[in-house]
Amino acid sequence: MAEKASSSGVIFRPHFKTHQSLILGRWYKDAGISKITVSSLSAAEYFANDGWKDITVAFPVNLREIDLINQLAKTVRIGLLLENPQVAIALDCELKYNADVYIKIDTGYHRTGLMPGEMPVIKDLADRVQNSNHLNLAGLLTHAGHTYHAPNAAAIKNIYAESTRILNDVKNNLSYLGQDLILSYGDTPSCTLMESFENIQEIRPGNFIFYDLMMIDAGVCDPSQVGGIVVCPVVATHPSRNQAVLYGGAIHFSKDSILIDGKRGYGQMVEMNAKGWHKPIPGAWLVSLSQEHGILEAPPEVIMNLKPGSVVGILPVHACLTANLLHGYQLTDGGIADYFIGN
Amino acid sequence: MAEKASSSGVIFRPHFKTHQSLILGRWYKDAGISKITVSSLSAAEYFANDGWKDITVAFPVNLREIDLINQLAKTVRIGLLLENPQVAIALDCELKYNADVYIKIDTGYHRTGLMPGEMPVIKDLADRVQNSNHLNLAGLLTHAGHTYHAPNAAAIKNIYAESTRILNDVKNNLSYLGQDLILSYGDTPSCTLMESFENIQEIRPGNFIFYDLMMIDAGVCDPSQVGGIVVCPVVATHPSRNQAVLYGGAIHFSKDSILIDGKRGYGQMVEMNAKGWHKPIPGAWLVSLSQEHGILEAPPEVIMNLKPGSVVGILPVHACLTANLLHGYQLTDGGIADYFIGN
Repeated sequence: MAEKASSSGVIFRPHFKTHQSLILGRWYKDAGISKITVSSLSAAEYFANDGWKDITVAFPVNLREIDLINQLAKTVRIGLLLENPQVAIALDCELKYNADVYIKIDTGYHRTGLMPGEMPVIKDLADRVQNSNHLNLAGLLTHAGHTYHAPNAAAIKNIYAESTRILNDVKNNLSYLGQDLILSYGDTPSCTLMESFENIQEIRPGNFIFYDLMMIDAGVCDPSQVGGIVVCPVVATHPSRNQAVLYGGAIHFSKDSILIDGKRGYGQMVEMNAKGWHKPIPGAWLVSLSQEHGILEAPPEVIMNLKPGSVVGILPVHACLTANLLHGYQLTDGGIADYFIGN
Repeated sequence: MAEKASSSGVIFRPHFKTHQSLILGRWYKDAGISKITVSSLSAAEYFANDGWKDITVAFPVNLREIDLINQLAKTVRIGLLLENPQVAIALDCELKYNADVYIKIDTGYHRTGLMPGEMPVIKDLADRVQNSNHLNLAGLLTHAGHTYHAPNAAAIKNIYAESTRILNDVKNNLSYLGQDLILSYGDTPSCTLMESFENIQEIRPGNFIFYDLMMIDAGVCDPSQVGGIVVCPVVATHPSRNQAVLYGGAIHFSKDSILIDGKRGYGQMVEMNAKGWHKPIPGAWLVSLSQEHGILEAPPEVIMNLKPGSVVGILPVHACLTANLLHGYQLTDGGIADYFIGN
């Protein structure tokens, strides 16, 4: 991803909300990355304390956290998301140090952000930022999260084309400001499938560090590219119904699921080997999760080889939420990596 | 619940997996409770360190945690769940101190446990426990989790009747052992709706300390009985689509949902007041959750009164998973309560 960003001449500002780990973060540093994205101020603080100096918080400003915003703005280059002129005014009143501002643009996902049809509001917001004491209008930012629901690779590439066109239209409408705005673009599906990044200046993918069943299901990656599984102890077997009970439930995986032949799947069992894991086992799925229990349903020959006390590897449906719950990593080289525990 | 257990002459061993807090646990202690249930050994350790001396771990024994089992068995009365004779043998070999054993019986939920038709295995397991060095056969335990999916109160009461009948049948079949087995029964729906507890010796409800939307939806409780909400900052409003964006997503609520008029709901907004909160607001629902974002959809007059920086109260769908993610409590009297962070 770093090489692809570099050859396209765009800034690579990976989203750290997926892994949330200082150790894994340093792998990016070793690859020459110095700018990062996070989704909360507390995570920004966690990484700032490890030496990161240029951090975008890709979540609309929560005015109730002004103290932490000021604390961070004092010591690092902090990027904030705005979509409301009144928030810009309130924020500028309370800020004691400078902060970069990205205007959040909704290019079709419709979660949040200003739509291209709301140009008067976008201009009002941009003007208020320009006329503020501490805010620097740095760019326009979008998260094209609708790529996660796109039916295929062509549809994902179309979303990229349409979203970047919208961003450039808005940028052109703001050209009177005389600012060279950065167009910042997110989401792992697009950033994985695009071979180069035209018409934008920054990418912010996060999930690609692990990938997961959702990304396999969407045709974005291959099972061999998945970078993390959950290792679960077996605590009971029920061969008569081709099931085993794992110590691995909703408090470990969260509850995202995908549809497999009309049935909900909460994770797929993988073959494990000395180096970590190999490929997914067909028909071996977590079919239900309660707080601690995970119910694994698998072909008879798989269940027969399981016994309480053994472990199985499970490829998670949604790596970000799973990582958030597990509070740390066992690395395949034997090391341990930390995980930020916060909200 | 304590009074109802007492008047029925059954042991009240509340499940602490819902609240996981030392402070909230002490409220039970103040009500005269001395026996508790947890769902993990690490939680058992957390509460043992606060002085609890009689703890049942209501999850099938994970042999890989034998060191922690021994550490706990040394200092407290620990109850363990077994459903496999081979695990009983392996456990007894590794145990250095005594432990109570409850045989896990599946009375119809079909998550785990031995079914009444598996009497030879149940007897084999009971015999092995009886002939062990460190295991004491204390009782039979069931979690009638199918009450959570029952259509109405009558169906829940029927499940109670059927489950307790099955437990007593199994107990009668084990009478040759000459042990006075405790029949331990779980689940908040039954324990809430039954007026007294016949034919069992112990109850283990947990969720009732808070209740939640699932329990309201199932007719188990009334909104006025709910004991915990999540207070979320508003970070954006979108009046054109009757929505606001809350800082409250899947990493705060988990992803359990209920169906409201055919649409998924992940939480319902409540009116707040000086003492905490009042009643749910009709039509004001969290309609989607991503990692940090919660999308609130509500009538225009509700959305119009929200602005970034204000807060809204959200009644969660599933209190146990929500509490697990939030890592602590703000009490309505101004205090703060801890939360165990573990898996």
